[in-house]
Amino acid sequence: MKTNGHDQNGEAQLHSEPVSVKQFPCSKKVYVVGSRPDIRVPMREITLNSTPASFGAEENPPVLVYDTSGAWTDPTVSVDTREGLPAVRTGWIEERGDTEILNELSSAYGQERMNDPKTEALRFQHIRKPRRALPGKNVTQMHYAKQGIITPEMEFVAIRENMRIEELQREGRIPSKPVNRGEGLGAIIPDIITPEFVRDEVARGRAIIPANINHPELEPMVIGRNFLVKINCNLGNSAVTSSIEEEVEKMTWGIRWGADTVMDLSTGKNIHETREWILRNSPVPIGTVPIYQALEKVDGKAEELTWEIFRDTLIEQAEQGVDYFTIHAGVRLPYVPLTANRLTGIVSRGGSIMAKWCLAHHEESFLYTHFAEICEIMRAYDVSFSLGDGLRPGSIADANDAAQFAELETLGELTEVAWEMDCQVMIEGPGHVPMHLIKENMEKQLEVCREAPFYTLGPLTTDIAPGYDHITSAIGAAMIGWFGTAMLCYVTPKEHLGLPNKHDVREGIITYKIAAHAADLAKGHPAAQVRDDALSKARFEFRWNDQFNLSLDPDRAREYHDETLPKESSKVAHFCSMCGPHFCSMKITQDVREYAAKHGLGETEALESGMKEKAKEFVEKGSEVYQEM
Amino acid sequence: MKTNGHDQNGEAQLHSEPVSVKQFPCSKKVYVVGSRPDIRVPMREITLNSTPASFGAEENPPVLVYDTSGAWTDPTVSVDTREGLPAVRTGWIEERGDTEILNELSSAYGQERMNDPKTEALRFQHIRKPRRALPGKNVTQMHYAKQGIITPEMEFVAIRENMRIEELQREGRIPSKPVNRGEGLGAIIPDIITPEFVRDEVARGRAIIPANINHPELEPMVIGRNFLVKINCNLGNSAVTSSIEEEVEKMTWGIRWGADTVMDLSTGKNIHETREWILRNSPVPIGTVPIYQALEKVDGKAEELTWEIFRDTLIEQAEQGVDYFTIHAGVRLPYVPLTANRLTGIVSRGGSIMAKWCLAHHEESFLYTHFAEICEIMRAYDVSFSLGDGLRPGSIADANDAAQFAELETLGELTEVAWEMDCQVMIEGPGHVPMHLIKENMEKQLEVCREAPFYTLGPLTTDIAPGYDHITSAIGAAMIGWFGTAMLCYVTPKEHLGLPNKHDVREGIITYKIAAHAADLAKGHPAAQVRDDALSKARFEFRWNDQFNLSLDPDRAREYHDETLPKESSKVAHFCSMCGPHFCSMKITQDVREYAAKHGLGETEALESGMKEKAKEFVEKGSEVYQEM
Repeated sequence: MKTNGHDQNGEAQLHSEPVSVKQFPCSKKVYVVGSRPDIRVPMREITLNSTPASFGAEENPPVLVYDTSGAWTDPTVSVDTREGLPAVRTGWIEERGDTEILNELSSAYGQERMNDPKTEALRFQHIRKPRRALPGKNVTQMHYAKQGIITPEMEFVAIRENMRIEELQREGRIPSKPVNRGEGLGAIIPDIITPEFVRDEVARGRAIIPANINHPELEPMVIGRNFLVKINCNLGNSAVTSSIEEEVEKMTWGIRWGADTVMDLSTGKNIHETREWILRNSPVPIGTVPIYQALEKVDGKAEELTWEIFRDTLIEQAEQGVDYFTIHAGVRLPYVPLTANRLTGIVSRGGSIMAKWCLAHHEESFLYTHFAEICEIMRAYDVSFSLGDGLRPGSIADANDAAQFAELETLGELTEVAWEMDCQVMIEGPGHVPMHLIKENMEKQLEVCREAPFYTLGPLTTDIAPGYDHITSAIGAAMIGWFGTAMLCYVTPKEHLGLPNKHDVREGIITYKIAAHAADLAKGHPAAQVRDDALSKARFEFRWNDQFNLSLDPDRAREYHDETLPKESSKVAHFCSMCGPHFCSMKITQDVREYAAKHGLGETEALESGMKEKAKEFVEKGSEVYQEM
Repeated sequence: MKTNGHDQNGEAQLHSEPVSVKQFPCSKKVYVVGSRPDIRVPMREITLNSTPASFGAEENPPVLVYDTSGAWTDPTVSVDTREGLPAVRTGWIEERGDTEILNELSSAYGQERMNDPKTEALRFQHIRKPRRALPGKNVTQMHYAKQGIITPEMEFVAIRENMRIEELQREGRIPSKPVNRGEGLGAIIPDIITPEFVRDEVARGRAIIPANINHPELEPMVIGRNFLVKINCNLGNSAVTSSIEEEVEKMTWGIRWGADTVMDLSTGKNIHETREWILRNSPVPIGTVPIYQALEKVDGKAEELTWEIFRDTLIEQAEQGVDYFTIHAGVRLPYVPLTANRLTGIVSRGGSIMAKWCLAHHEESFLYTHFAEICEIMRAYDVSFSLGDGLRPGSIADANDAAQFAELETLGELTEVAWEMDCQVMIEGPGHVPMHLIKENMEKQLEVCREAPFYTLGPLTTDIAPGYDHITSAIGAAMIGWFGTAMLCYVTPKEHLGLPNKHDVREGIITYKIAAHAADLAKGHPAAQVRDDALSKARFEFRWNDQFNLSLDPDRAREYHDETLPKESSKVAHFCSMCGPHFCSMKITQDVREYAAKHGLGETEALESGMKEKAKEFVEKGSEVYQEM
């Protein structure tokens, strides 16, 4: 924990070191331009070496990969935390003509902070005036989609999702269908993802584009079962203050490794200011759990929460630009007793806060009773719902129980309400679930919530491995991603034990990128296998640097290789550290190929079938030793 | 790499530091005695604290867990590497009266090493004379089982597998059926695993008990789809020499973390002597790939391999006590061309050696043509087959292709041959397989190999994460374990990149214990959920030390917790480091329970249904705000 960012009163101050994001080796930022010049979709292009002469000496085209790191890795843009990122969406929002700039913040708390001289030193210096829908207008992507409109956001994500697959196929760089493309278990992923397809999925509620009109720095992304599986990374200072720039750096660390969205779960006194800094510097959607901040406002006493305080918090955060809110509106009074006999009760913080409130007042949750009013706020800024699973199981024993499924039914009911008002919705899911119950969870969610995107934490497939819960949960995450979950909330090795440090965050993100990618392969995303094939080809041809550069964590791959063979010459050697120069199966395979080519083996199907006949003959003769083929 | 164990000629010498194995905290070795006093089945008993007064103050019975660490963690036995472990099976083997002690080693190479004065300093000092079946006798566990005999080995594994579940249930320590017990996908796991059940599974070929009569130090274990999923850990010095005691220590490090079997994949000049040391000190089955040593004998030139050299190697290793051999007899000449158009060719070392031999000689593999003779050797010592998958896919693109499945068909054919001769068989499996193709793999293996135990490497579910392939493969391993794989071969983070160090081995083993346990939960092993429930209860009651001690890696769990809250007092605190004292969901849940108890909520089903009615009424009234329930 750095303390040099705090003065003696514990107030956070700005660091002097600038935040920066390191580009991966042999990678560069490229943009694919859409139907208009201001639709510029960022990708990372990984340059590869040619195949060595002994393997055929062909050129290997660069590989394009999805890039979440924003302008931070664009050398042509000089990003200064104090200025924030370029506001790429402003023109799109303005030209729709359905919003107005307000003269002042609508939230009482926001105004209080803005006018408090004690927070001035912490405050972002270029706070924009808030934007809101004009009276009677609805500015959600779902609203536009339902009217048949293709927004620039929709075109942006269409280009982002299909990874230029059409162009790559046309150029013969990748096969038109990967050999082992999955079939999708109910997902319907087209070969080419078009803006029209995105629009239809958003209109149908099967996908969301979290994109608050007050977050113009956002590079839009889509969350839905017919798109690439996304991952969320949490950050938060918890009860202990950390400096604002540290928080911004946590966010940039997350997007460097591939976080598609970031949830800011901070608590503490300066979270309003911290959030502003994060939003102004984030190219990815930012999510929050507003009840956490509301609870701070009543000094941690759940029973003192009120609808008014919560409502003001929603508006405060919506006007800052938060893209999605976790709202635990499904934790209803009658469900609380269903948890009394659980092994681990209620493990969601938001869920337990609301349960406590309900019992203390002996009243229905104000989140449930005011749900339509919440929708009104959401649609005025296009904040997406992430309907929280406050009663998710905290142990294998509690998985798929009455409490969990009762809440899920309510989330389905609330999804309908939100959709009626054209609000975008995703649904949060468990938790701790053994493998054999994962599919039931997914199927029930798809049915009850009518395919609104599922956003799951793991699930953890066993309780017995604290310290390794990124792994217990990656197993469940990969499976549920394949079955239909649209976004996976990462879990770090510190889950259940402590606060993740930078190392843990990286470990958690890469683990979840693995789960998401494994799911993309299995569910049949058309572009997913390109990277596997390119890496495996590099591996087979002993192009070590290409193997490292194509991997999810190039730094780690290189470091591990160099532990055994540190010399630069080893990176072009035709053997590796495991078996040494004379005992390498890849080398032997190459010899086999050369031999086969020389002797004409394996070159035609006719030959193969001829050999099969010979083999049959061989068996029929009683498998005698040393027969001539 | 330690070098102080080598003299200037690079010869390995013995270290002075003794090998030892640290017991886990609050754990002790206990033995469950079977029908006769010499059947003593080791288990690890984890002592738990009482529940704190605020949660009910009940006692928590100790939890018994499967223990692979042997006498190394028994404080009543003083283990000396130079003496080896107690020979617990000698009496069982002798009383069967079907073996004889030979006066000298039957293998020419074994004799050569024994008589070479240069190896004397390296040699284990108490080498027993080898034991072999009497002429005409068959000493395999399968042979006994087929005759209806229950061997002490079978009773031992029955006790080991059912974890005293009957007794625990009778004493009311665990519920008779776990809440979320899986259904097994074709596995038929009885509530109580009896010796008769073990016998029938072994007779049927659906399970094996790898137990060479020359490995009397072995604590028997069973590998089969209707038992706990096992994991294998590889060790090996590769091309670089390491000292013998280092190799023994690698083995003990593996079994401390839970390896059920260990494969010794060493290469180099002193592997014969190293293997002797490992066997004499190993309580778990040791597997090898004899072709590796055979290749050493012909200086790495695959084409110079002969049946005679291979045969002598089998006998050499069988008389040392190796419990199972990987034999790549399915890599047949006609299948080699099927790999020519693969993205990554042949990636198995054994497979590529045999492919090279077949092509060089243009002849059928001698492993295939001499298979019946191999069976004769196997049954004379009870070495189990692990039929190698030499054509396993090395990339997502090559998964489930013609080459892989052609070999699998041959493995099925060879299984029948081996079973005819009462040899125990398991089948090795892939490799790299995307999630949607895993089930096909498993189902094909079950069908073609008639449910002979499947022993898979991973499978890795994506190619793009070198440095994290323990995770890419744990996803596949957990799934295929659930579907029916009996043993999982671990993968470390160094896979594809370098040689694993101690840290990597621990990481790989724990990752695979997670996959195996997740599979046990899903496939419905009756005792699996006991540990999850005990750990989750400890977590809920803030019994931090119990949570650590019940976990797969107590050291890691404690260390991660202590990074944030190092004080001893934090380990009884009713909150944790993530949320601080005032913001803990578990604490709030406890408040909810207390509140609920005080107000009579949740105590009767009648009340619950009454509340549900109220809730329904509430919705019908239009979900108005602040209604009284």
